Amino acid sequence: MKQEIILTGDRPTGPLHLGHYVGSLENRIQLQDAHKQYIMIADVQALTDNYAHPEKVRENVLQVALDYLAIGIDPNKSTIFIQSLIPQIADLTVFYLNLVTVNRLARNPTVKNEIHQKGFGESIPAGFFMYPVSQAADITVVKATLVPVGEDQAPMIEQTNEIVRSFNYHYKTDVLCEVKIALSQTPRLSGIDGKAKMSKSLNNAIYLGDTQEELQKKVMKMYTDSGHLRVEDPGKVEGNSVFTYLDVFDKDKARVQELKEHYQRGGLGDVVLKKYLFEVLNNFLTPIRERRIELAKDPEYVMQILKQGTEKTLVVAEQTLKEVKSAMLLNYF
Amino acid sequence: MKQEIILTGDRPTGPLHLGHYVGSLENRIQLQDAHKQYIMIADVQALTDNYAHPEKVRENVLQVALDYLAIGIDPNKSTIFIQSLIPQIADLTVFYLNLVTVNRLARNPTVKNEIHQKGFGESIPAGFFMYPVSQAADITVVKATLVPVGEDQAPMIEQTNEIVRSFNYHYKTDVLCEVKIALSQTPRLSGIDGKAKMSKSLNNAIYLGDTQEELQKKVMKMYTDSGHLRVEDPGKVEGNSVFTYLDVFDKDKARVQELKEHYQRGGLGDVVLKKYLFEVLNNFLTPIRERRIELAKDPEYVMQILKQGTEKTLVVAEQTLKEVKSAMLLNYF
Repeated sequence: MKQEIILTGDRPTGPLHLGHYVGSLENRIQLQDAHKQYIMIADVQALTDNYAHPEKVRENVLQVALDYLAIGIDPNKSTIFIQSLIPQIADLTVFYLNLVTVNRLARNPTVKNEIHQKGFGESIPAGFFMYPVSQAADITVVKATLVPVGEDQAPMIEQTNEIVRSFNYHYKTDVLCEVKIALSQTPRLSGIDGKAKMSKSLNNAIYLGDTQEELQKKVMKMYTDSGHLRVEDPGKVEGNSVFTYLDVFDKDKARVQELKEHYQRGGLGDVVLKKYLFEVLNNFLTPIRERRIELAKDPEYVMQILKQGTEKTLVVAEQTLKEVKSAMLLNYF
Repeated sequence: MKQEIILTGDRPTGPLHLGHYVGSLENRIQLQDAHKQYIMIADVQALTDNYAHPEKVRENVLQVALDYLAIGIDPNKSTIFIQSLIPQIADLTVFYLNLVTVNRLARNPTVKNEIHQKGFGESIPAGFFMYPVSQAADITVVKATLVPVGEDQAPMIEQTNEIVRSFNYHYKTDVLCEVKIALSQTPRLSGIDGKAKMSKSLNNAIYLGDTQEELQKKVMKMYTDSGHLRVEDPGKVEGNSVFTYLDVFDKDKARVQELKEHYQRGGLGDVVLKKYLFEVLNNFLTPIRERRIELAKDPEYVMQILKQGTEKTLVVAEQTLKEVKSAMLLNYF
């Protein structure tokens, strides 16, 4: 297997939850063994729609780092860095903006969709509008060859590759390389309310750092089958969040199959079922939670890890920018 | 008189001409004595509409610097720097983009007008579209208090001040300061064809570095009065480029008045008049031309001046960015 250079990361706008774990974090633990993996804490990107709340972004840089380390991201294998500390990304962004038209940005389906979701209306911050360009800068600054993303993010990567081709064409160079998408295999984890997406803003998330009590409460109010009123009634398994979670987190597949059959023929109550899911999730989250609590006692140590990762990234970013500026004939001295 | 911090500069897309001299360069020679003046060679901005021609931008950085030094910009008084070598400008640009909406940018009259002039049609490079934001970064990175501009650029400065206010408001700070406009007193110098604007693209410019022969040719084909066919005919002074130039460049105002009267009553031929203008312009341009030729023999010396100016600017830019990032809570280490 060829060693890839991977760029991945998160906007530090809240602590990470099980949806992040299933959608990307788990994958990163695998990838860090075989590849060169950069994990970016995207504070600058987080500010594009949180510019009025810098304290939220600031606080969550540490929270996200705690999550990374608690789940097993190994700073000796993965390079974790803070976006705002890599000034070369801003330089590249400014250069790349010349290679993209305003109309092309307006047509980006991911951005269009997010603009709608975030309710910007007519007041779209220019920074948000052009974050695909900034993302191209994130990816190319470390010369990433592979970016693991969900399907909804695929147009962003296409935008990056368009910029790469345009840059190499106009500046008669091959310093930038196109990037491949590693589409996430896992379907998106639904929220505890049964809604398609687990997310902080929908208030339906189980966080990696949730206490046992928080976890219990959330599991107990989880969406099951609204038609399953009495224990003896047959219940539905499809769209039942408890079974969705069991499918993902319970390693005992035979046991899950048994529970599904029992639930479908009736006689298995929601409370019993949820208690079982709680056990499964709690077994999964307990070591993460404990490591997180330990790490949180020494935030300076965690920040030191980010500092070191940032310094490593800076070396690569400086080299990339040097090559880019050289291709653009901006190499004066 | 309060000492102002001035930011001014040029896009290095061609050598500078008499229009630049009258519109801004002459003013800079005055300003450098009383104020702290930064003169930016705006290579990054030049690339927003010349991204496919980096060699043109690159070559003209030296040409513009030669013009500056030849006319009497004193590097001990003015700080001349190259935009692309100040990475803090890109950082500020990215941060400021969050504080401006796409609609606000689309409404900028200067940009609207230039988009029309440059014939971008539906293919407006995003970098060009948002250069008012990049300009706000140029201005604020040195904490300029005064920007000398033509009236057509006034909306750009208003955009800068909007960003300054928004930044200070959202980040509860006063690190950025609003900037005042010093409107140019001199009306725009017309081209040798009598068109309203002297410009490289209209091919109607007299360059500061033009040889005596080039100057003579240009003056001899200069637009006068299309109705003035015979020497004895009365001629028009208004809209007559020769008189426009005499008004600006001939210090002997009485002599110009005499010539005007002679021309208006008839008996003064265009050739005689143009020969006189040639003398005036040549007297003005000869010392500039000679200094320019001398300087051009030692481009390394000139580049060294730009390097030193850039290094001085970097110190200020680093301090500004530090304060800006601190206000945005992006001060991790």
